[in-house]
Amino acid sequence: MSFIRRWNIGTQTRKLSNMATLNASKLTITKTTTPREKVPKEQLVFGKTFTDHILEVEWTAEKGWAAPTITPYHNLSFDPSTIVFHYGFEAFEGMKAYRDSKNQIRIFRPDRNMARMNTSAERIALPTFDSAEFIKLINEFVKLDESFVPEGEGYSLYLRPTIIGTSASLGVSTPDKALLYLIASPVGPYYSTGFKAVSLEATDYAVRAWPGGVGNKKLGANYAPCVKPQLEAAARGYQQNLWLFGEEGYITEVGTMNVFFVFKNADGKKELVTAPLDGTILEGVTRDSVLTLARDRLPADEWTVNERKFTVQEVKDRAAKGELVEAFGSGTAALVSPIKNIGWKGEDIAVPLAAGEAGELTVQMSEWIKKIQYGEEEYKGWSMLIQ
Amino acid sequence: MSFIRRWNIGTQTRKLSNMATLNASKLTITKTTTPREKVPKEQLVFGKTFTDHILEVEWTAEKGWAAPTITPYHNLSFDPSTIVFHYGFEAFEGMKAYRDSKNQIRIFRPDRNMARMNTSAERIALPTFDSAEFIKLINEFVKLDESFVPEGEGYSLYLRPTIIGTSASLGVSTPDKALLYLIASPVGPYYSTGFKAVSLEATDYAVRAWPGGVGNKKLGANYAPCVKPQLEAAARGYQQNLWLFGEEGYITEVGTMNVFFVFKNADGKKELVTAPLDGTILEGVTRDSVLTLARDRLPADEWTVNERKFTVQEVKDRAAKGELVEAFGSGTAALVSPIKNIGWKGEDIAVPLAAGEAGELTVQMSEWIKKIQYGEEEYKGWSMLIQ
Repeated sequence: MSFIRRWNIGTQTRKLSNMATLNASKLTITKTTTPREKVPKEQLVFGKTFTDHILEVEWTAEKGWAAPTITPYHNLSFDPSTIVFHYGFEAFEGMKAYRDSKNQIRIFRPDRNMARMNTSAERIALPTFDSAEFIKLINEFVKLDESFVPEGEGYSLYLRPTIIGTSASLGVSTPDKALLYLIASPVGPYYSTGFKAVSLEATDYAVRAWPGGVGNKKLGANYAPCVKPQLEAAARGYQQNLWLFGEEGYITEVGTMNVFFVFKNADGKKELVTAPLDGTILEGVTRDSVLTLARDRLPADEWTVNERKFTVQEVKDRAAKGELVEAFGSGTAALVSPIKNIGWKGEDIAVPLAAGEAGELTVQMSEWIKKIQYGEEEYKGWSMLIQ
Repeated sequence: MSFIRRWNIGTQTRKLSNMATLNASKLTITKTTTPREKVPKEQLVFGKTFTDHILEVEWTAEKGWAAPTITPYHNLSFDPSTIVFHYGFEAFEGMKAYRDSKNQIRIFRPDRNMARMNTSAERIALPTFDSAEFIKLINEFVKLDESFVPEGEGYSLYLRPTIIGTSASLGVSTPDKALLYLIASPVGPYYSTGFKAVSLEATDYAVRAWPGGVGNKKLGANYAPCVKPQLEAAARGYQQNLWLFGEEGYITEVGTMNVFFVFKNADGKKELVTAPLDGTILEGVTRDSVLTLARDRLPADEWTVNERKFTVQEVKDRAAKGELVEAFGSGTAALVSPIKNIGWKGEDIAVPLAAGEAGELTVQMSEWIKKIQYGEEEYKGWSMLIQ
């Protein structure tokens, strides 16, 4: 598959065809001679311990993508003027590798993550790459560090593809050097003892994203500013914050997850709702999976599935009328995260938990997606076997 | 001066009083044994070459600020999971050191830059520090690398204080490790042969900042997303982009500078206008200096100085009526940058250049500020002697 780096500058498309494209067949592997001891799976903490290796591909404006390498996990060393330290030239993805009941390893919808990573990179003038070639490299990496993929439901190897600008210069301009790399961290279930519904505080004093901004891209820029509103919510006794937008109080995301609500409508049907992709919402792979499964499997005479704008006031009003059925966040880390309560303007909106610590659709979705992720069921080619 | 790190979490203020504060008296200096050759000053390129040393201060949540060090300039080496590579935990400042006619070194309003750096750090949950102590450290650093401060009008040593989150963990949460550092790059005049007025393209398809966002902080997050609109403007023949906000087309900033316009009003007075600090504008030190000098020195019977909202439509209408006098950007890099033209909706708005390549106030402001920066004139203690 050939690949040409393109800059869409206005109507002009420049093709830099003499630059090397990302080529998985050029991969060289140097195995570690000092393998790490595995952390007992009960003691795993998200993103704290890593596998034995790192995958790296260097890029320069002059030569394009260099030959990929897998080498023993090591520090990255850069000049202190490097643009990743100053100007936020960084984009990443989050994916997981699962061990199935036949002891095979699977990854979930890597094509979606790689497509998104390319749109993220392109938005901040970092180089794009051939997704299929990078997925081949991920395959080789996961095969090599296969022993780090824990077994058991809810356990997985979290994969972190990252791209950073590495030009050593304080000028704010197009990076002429970049590094695409992959590290991986074995993780346990987000909820170690079944679901645990969370309480949210609606945030109206800070705004995560704006039309015409970059909130729909998976950029480092979108994350550091989220911590303070999260801390403030925590200080008032809430576990996560719920991002609102505009004077209307449109519901956009929860913490760093997409968010879904279920309402009971006047016609007796239930409605699954999430915010539309208007440029202010992260285009979640789990969000897309939830929508696809809901449209495919929920009976059409009982359910409607809508991507539409809705406000925290609507949630409050419908909760008061007994029309709020359930709510959950969706993301790679937690898969689905049930919501029990929303604090807004000094009042709490209680969200029903019909199935104990979650709503019924939340439980159903979790089961549907896990079955696909762990290879118990084939669905639309979403689960890719590592081979 | 004692300093206590505070978290303003809602109404609660936590004082972590057992943590060490930033203490300049603990500085240790290890001088280079391999001094660099100086680049001839005519060949200097902004932010490409650096002095012999780096100033570093490590912080941990457990112990607070460690003893500062100045050591030979060296790479920074971090685990690939370090949060500065993933989540945009980075804030910086730009300042300059000038060599005056008595061969003394001066820096311009460092208190303003350090105050802003603390507000930037605080917004992304990075540790704050005692500005006065850090200025003492800058003083020692500049003294040590004094030979890198070039002489001559327009020449200076660009100082880049930077703070980054250095926790090695993929969790999005409050950093428990950080590094505050300073590097410095000798630079020549932005315009090597006198002023050169720039043409701008008004950007209405992308938004730099919004109310409730972080566009008023000097965060890495605000810079990478600026490159693509800049490239698009360049592809259409403009040198910089002009950031608009909202359907009204409010003028906010130019490229990475604040922006000023001069209008002739009906009462015969001239009006100097810049956008107000509403949370979407970087709180520029040069911007503040321009406003302060304008209010202090422009005759009140001939001038009004306003921080107010104004639109690109107003600029266009007043240009058509002959009421647009001049326009310029302001920032540390260029000081003032005259504007000759604004492309908007397929038309160009011509900006007068009464003094050749700049307007008259642009030239006047440049002279006023340079005199203070190079110590030819004392003004409000803005120029700090290195000693």
